[in-house]
Amino acid sequence: MHLIHSEKCGVRRAMMLIGSKWKMVLIGCLKDGMQRYGELKRSIPDISEKMLIQELKDLVEAGLVEKTSYPEVPPRVEYRLTEKGQKAIPVWEMVERFGCDYL
Amino acid sequence: MHLIHSEKCGVRRAMMLIGSKWKMVLIGCLKDGMQRYGELKRSIPDISEKMLIQELKDLVEAGLVEKTSYPEVPPRVEYRLTEKGQKAIPVWEMVERFGCDYL
Repeated sequence: MHLIHSEKCGVRRAMMLIGSKWKMVLIGCLKDGMQRYGELKRSIPDISEKMLIQELKDLVEAGLVEKTSYPEVPPRVEYRLTEKGQKAIPVWEMVERFGCDYL
Repeated sequence: MHLIHSEKCGVRRAMMLIGSKWKMVLIGCLKDGMQRYGELKRSIPDISEKMLIQELKDLVEAGLVEKTSYPEVPPRVEYRLTEKGQKAIPVWEMVERFGCDYL
C-alpha cells in the first residue's frame, strides 16, 4: 500500500507535529531566532494564554523547540527552534506562499 | 504589526484551508490526477465516511477541488484538484519531506 495511506506516511506524521494553525504561526515567530515568552504573547495577540502554553509544550515535546528558563525574578523563559525545528521553516515558507496566493 | 500576526497572514489563511491531516492526505491522493470517491475511500482506509465527505466538501467549497457527478446508476463522482488546488502540491511535498525526516 502506498506509504501515503499508512501511519508511516510523512504527511500524517508531519501534520501531527506541526499541523495546527498556532504551531505554524509559532514556527514563523521563531524562525528568525530566540523569542521570550512575553514577546511571543505580544506578537500573537489573539492566542489565549492556555493555547500558547499548550502549543509551545507540544513543540518542545516534539523536539522542535527548545525552552530555556532562567532562575530570575521575574522568571525569564526563552524559546528557540532546535535543529529539527529549523527543518520546519521551509514548510512555513511554502504554507505562507500558498496562503498569500489566496489574499 | 507584522502580517504574521493578523488575519491577513498567509499562514493563518492557508492553515484554515488545508491545515488538517486529512486534507493534506487528500491533496496527496489527488496530486497525480482525478480520483473517484471509491478510489479515495479505498486509498485511505482509516478515514471515516463522514470525515471523508466533510473534508472533500470543505476542499470543494475552498475552490481547491472540483467535484464532477455523472447521472449514472450507480452514481459516478470524480474529484480533481483545481488550478488553485495544484498550488497546494508544493506544500504537500514540503510537508511530506519534513515528515519523512522524522521517520
